Amino acid sequence: MAIGLKFSIIIFSLFSMIDFTFTFSHTKPQPRFPSSPLHPELQLSSASDEKNLYKTKYFTQILDHFNYNPQSYQTFQQRYLINDTYWGGFKNNAPIFVYTGNEGDIEWFTQNTGFMFEKAPHFKALLVFIEHRYYGKSIPFDGDKNIAYANSSTLGYLSSTQALADYATLIIDLKKNLSATDSPVVVFGGSYGGMLAAWFRLKYPHVAIGALASSAPILHFMDVTSPYVFNNIITQDFRSVSENCYKVLKGSWKLIEDTFSKKGGPKLLQKTFRICNNDYDPDSLEGWLQTAWIYAAMTDYPTPSNFLNPMPAYPVRKMCEAIDRSSTWNNNNNNTLDKLYGAANIYYNYTGTVKCFDLNDDSDPHGLQEWQWQACTEMIMPLGSNNKESIFPESKWYYDDRSSYCQYAYNVTPRPHWITTEFGGHDIKKVLRRFASNIIFFNGLRDPWSGGGVLENISKTIVAIVAKEGAHHVDLRFSTKEDPKWLKDIRKQEVKIIASWIKQYHEDLKFNN
Amino acid sequence: MAIGLKFSIIIFSLFSMIDFTFTFSHTKPQPRFPSSPLHPELQLSSASDEKNLYKTKYFTQILDHFNYNPQSYQTFQQRYLINDTYWGGFKNNAPIFVYTGNEGDIEWFTQNTGFMFEKAPHFKALLVFIEHRYYGKSIPFDGDKNIAYANSSTLGYLSSTQALADYATLIIDLKKNLSATDSPVVVFGGSYGGMLAAWFRLKYPHVAIGALASSAPILHFMDVTSPYVFNNIITQDFRSVSENCYKVLKGSWKLIEDTFSKKGGPKLLQKTFRICNNDYDPDSLEGWLQTAWIYAAMTDYPTPSNFLNPMPAYPVRKMCEAIDRSSTWNNNNNNTLDKLYGAANIYYNYTGTVKCFDLNDDSDPHGLQEWQWQACTEMIMPLGSNNKESIFPESKWYYDDRSSYCQYAYNVTPRPHWITTEFGGHDIKKVLRRFASNIIFFNGLRDPWSGGGVLENISKTIVAIVAKEGAHHVDLRFSTKEDPKWLKDIRKQEVKIIASWIKQYHEDLKFNN
Repeated sequence: MAIGLKFSIIIFSLFSMIDFTFTFSHTKPQPRFPSSPLHPELQLSSASDEKNLYKTKYFTQILDHFNYNPQSYQTFQQRYLINDTYWGGFKNNAPIFVYTGNEGDIEWFTQNTGFMFEKAPHFKALLVFIEHRYYGKSIPFDGDKNIAYANSSTLGYLSSTQALADYATLIIDLKKNLSATDSPVVVFGGSYGGMLAAWFRLKYPHVAIGALASSAPILHFMDVTSPYVFNNIITQDFRSVSENCYKVLKGSWKLIEDTFSKKGGPKLLQKTFRICNNDYDPDSLEGWLQTAWIYAAMTDYPTPSNFLNPMPAYPVRKMCEAIDRSSTWNNNNNNTLDKLYGAANIYYNYTGTVKCFDLNDDSDPHGLQEWQWQACTEMIMPLGSNNKESIFPESKWYYDDRSSYCQYAYNVTPRPHWITTEFGGHDIKKVLRRFASNIIFFNGLRDPWSGGGVLENISKTIVAIVAKEGAHHVDLRFSTKEDPKWLKDIRKQEVKIIASWIKQYHEDLKFNN
Repeated sequence: MAIGLKFSIIIFSLFSMIDFTFTFSHTKPQPRFPSSPLHPELQLSSASDEKNLYKTKYFTQILDHFNYNPQSYQTFQQRYLINDTYWGGFKNNAPIFVYTGNEGDIEWFTQNTGFMFEKAPHFKALLVFIEHRYYGKSIPFDGDKNIAYANSSTLGYLSSTQALADYATLIIDLKKNLSATDSPVVVFGGSYGGMLAAWFRLKYPHVAIGALASSAPILHFMDVTSPYVFNNIITQDFRSVSENCYKVLKGSWKLIEDTFSKKGGPKLLQKTFRICNNDYDPDSLEGWLQTAWIYAAMTDYPTPSNFLNPMPAYPVRKMCEAIDRSSTWNNNNNNTLDKLYGAANIYYNYTGTVKCFDLNDDSDPHGLQEWQWQACTEMIMPLGSNNKESIFPESKWYYDDRSSYCQYAYNVTPRPHWITTEFGGHDIKKVLRRFASNIIFFNGLRDPWSGGGVLENISKTIVAIVAKEGAHHVDLRFSTKEDPKWLKDIRKQEVKIIASWIKQYHEDLKFNN
C-alpha cells in the first residue's frame, strides 16, 4: 500500500488505534479517535446525577518516586473520584474498591465501570477511582500540558512504575486519613488499567489484597506473544459470522486501491464513504475502515453500547449482515463499496447523524493521546499482520519501525524489554503458580487483546475467567436487562471470588489480633 | 553530653556507625570506620589465590530505570564477580546463586560470604556477586566519584529500587548470554544485602526462585519497629555476661565526663585510651567506645573473625572479662578506665599493633560512606536510646533531627515512609502468609539488627531461622573447624530448604515442558 520512504506503524492505545502512517516529510502524526461517547445510562442522566456518582478530589503526588534529585520532589495534583454512599465504614473494616486508572480521563473509565457501582452496596465498599498521571486533570508541571507534554525531559516521568507507586502512595494516605488502615483494598481495572491492577497486586500486596484484572494483555510483549494474534482474532470474529463477510473485508483493500487508481475512482470512493475532503489519500480511508473493524471486535458486546461510539449489540454480526445483504463478493464492485460503507457506518454513524467523515479526525475526547509516549518508551506491544488468512493487509511487525518512529517523534529510544524485566511475562504460569495470590484475569475471546491475556488458571487463587462470547472488559460494564446468562454468571463468579478474599482477610485480621 | 547548638545523630550503616554528632559550625561530618579487614582465610591466601575466587566483569547498566528523560539513558559500568568453577552448566539448568550487593565494595562482601563458595559444589551453582550502584567500582558518571557524589542531582539515582532493577536487568542479560534462561536463580544477601535479597524475591519472582535473607532488618523502619530495640539488644548482650560488666559500661559515660572536667583529666584520659591528638573532645571518645561495643555485639561470632576488625571468638564475653577482671565498679576510677580501654582494645587493637588511636579517623576501607545519602533519603531506620536500663547514654530518636541533618548535609528531605510504601513492613505476617514464597530470614539474636528482622515463620515457605547465639549474618561466613553445632545445623537447614526450592523448580520445569 505504502509507496516510497514511508513508515506504516500502528500503535494501539488499548482503546484507540493510533495510525502512525507517516513519511519523514509529514508532521508528527496524530492519533485518530472516535467521537465522544458516554455510557448510555449516564448519557440519559442529568449533569447533577452524574455528579452524584462520585465526588472529585485531588491528592498532592510526588513527581518521581524512585529518584531523590531536586526535580523529583516536585509535586502535582492527582485527581481521584470517590463515592462513599455504600461504605460500611472504618469501624467495620469495610472494604475499599480502587480502580487503577488507565491512559485517559478517569471520568470516562469510571462511567464505564458500572460493575463497581453495582456491587458496592453488596460489599459495603468505598469506591475510589484514581486517575493515571499525565492524563485527564492529573498533569504534572502545574497542570500545564504545554510543559508536561513538551518533550522527553518532562514526559520522562510518565511510566507505569511511577503510576503504580502513585496508587500505593495515594491509597495508603487515604486509608490513614479515613482511619481505615485495616480496611482491605481490592483493585480493579480494565485493559491497561487491568494490567496495572494485576501488577499492583503483584508489586504491592501490602496495599491490595486482590485484583480483578479485566482484559489485561499483560503478556502482549516482545518475545512473549505473537504480534499477529491480535489481527487473527479479529479475522476470526468476522469469519465466524460468515465466509462471505470475511472475503469481502479481505478483498476490500485491493478493491479500494484499484478503484482509487481508476479515472473517477477517487470521486466515487469519496461519495460512497461520504468523505468530507477531496484530497484524502487511500491509506486514510483504509485506516478508517480498519479502525471500525478493530473496535467493533473489541467492543463486540451483547447489548447496545456506547463505550467508544454508540453501537448496536453484537456489532461484528451487524457489520457482516450489512455486507452479506443479498449479494456475494465481486458481483458488483460499487455495490461492495456501498456495503463496506454500510458496515463502517455501524461503528461511525449508528445514530445516523453524521453528514460526512473527516478521515484525519484527530479529536481525542478521552484524552488518550499520551499513550503514544508510553508506546514509545516501555509499552512495546507488538502488532501486525502477516497471516495470509488475515482480513487486514500484510503489515509485518518490525521493532525497528517502532524505534525509528519514536526517535523521530520524541527523540527517544524504547526499552522493549523493560516491562518483562520489571513485571515478568515469560513462563508466567511457572513463576506465579507458587507465588502470589488473589488475582482474577478476565478475558473475552472476541476481544483481540485477549491474545495477550492470561487464559488459564495459574493456581487456586490466581484464576482465569474466559468468556468465549465476551469482548473487551465486558464484565466491568453497567449491567442491562438484556445481558445474556453467561455474562451474569461471570459477574456472579467474580463477586464470589472477591467475597472470598475479603472473608479470608477478615478472618486473618481476627486471628492476628 | 552535648552542649549548645549541637545535634547528636547516629546513623548506622548496617556495617558502620556513622556518628553524626555535629554543630552547625562543623564541616560535614564523616563516618568513622574501623581499619581494613579481610576474612582470615583470605588474608592467609596470596593475591593470586584471591584472584582465583572470582573473575571481575562489568555490565553496562542504565542510570534510571523508572524514567525516560534524556539523562535517564546514561549508562555506567556495574561491577560483578563471577565464579563458574562449580557450575553444572545451562544444559542441566544448573542453578545460579546471586549475591545482591550491599552498601560497599563487593569484594569485601564476597570475601565474607564463604557459605556460597562452600555450597556451590553441592549445588553445581554458578556464583555471581553484583556490586550495588554508587559503591566500590560501580560509580555512575563515568566512574567519577567527584561528580557522582557531588550533590543531590547526581546522588539522586542512588536508591534501593534502582539497585533492585539493576540486579534484575543484569541477571536476565547474563542468563541470556549464558543460554541459561531456564537455570533457577537464588539470591543471597546479608544485612542491607539481605534486605535487598528478600525484596528482590518479592518484587522479581520471575527472576529469582528464592532468597536467603540473612540478618535483614526489613522491619527496622518508622512506626514498625521501636527505635530502642537495637540498643536494648546490645545492653542485653553485655548484661547476660555479667551484671558488673553492664554496670561499668553504663557508668562509664559519667565517669569519662567527670574525669575530663577535672584538672589533669583530659591528659589522663588521653594517656589511658592512647589517643593520638591532644585536643580531642570527650564526645569523640565516647563515640569511639560506643562503636566498639556495638560492633562487638554485631559480630559476636563463635570463632575468631576479621569482618570489621580482627577479633577473638565471642568478643562481648572477652570485653566483659577485661572489665570484670579482679575489681568491681567504682573501687578505683583509674583502674576502671584502664579496664574500659582493655575492653575497647579487643575491638580496636586485638593484634596489639596500634600505637595510638585517632578518634576522628574517617578512613573508609570498604567504601561504605554513601550509606549516609541512603540514610538521608529512604533508609530511615530509627535508632536511639531511651531505656533507663541501656548501657548507652540517653539519646532519643527524633525524626526531625535526622531531617535537619539531611537538609544540612545534602539539602535533601528524607521520605521516611517510602520504604514501607514500596516494600511493606506493617503486618508483614498478615500480608505475606497468603502471598509469596521461598524466603529464608536468618537472624542471630545477639545481633542488634535482629530487632528489625523477621523472627517468626510466616508460612510454610517463608521461614524464619533464629539462632539464639548467633550474630550478624554469621550463617553466610566461611565455616571453620571450631564452628559450634548450632551453626552447622543452621547451615544444613538452609541448604536443605534451598535444595527443596531448586528441586521443585526442576519438577515444575519438566511438568510445563
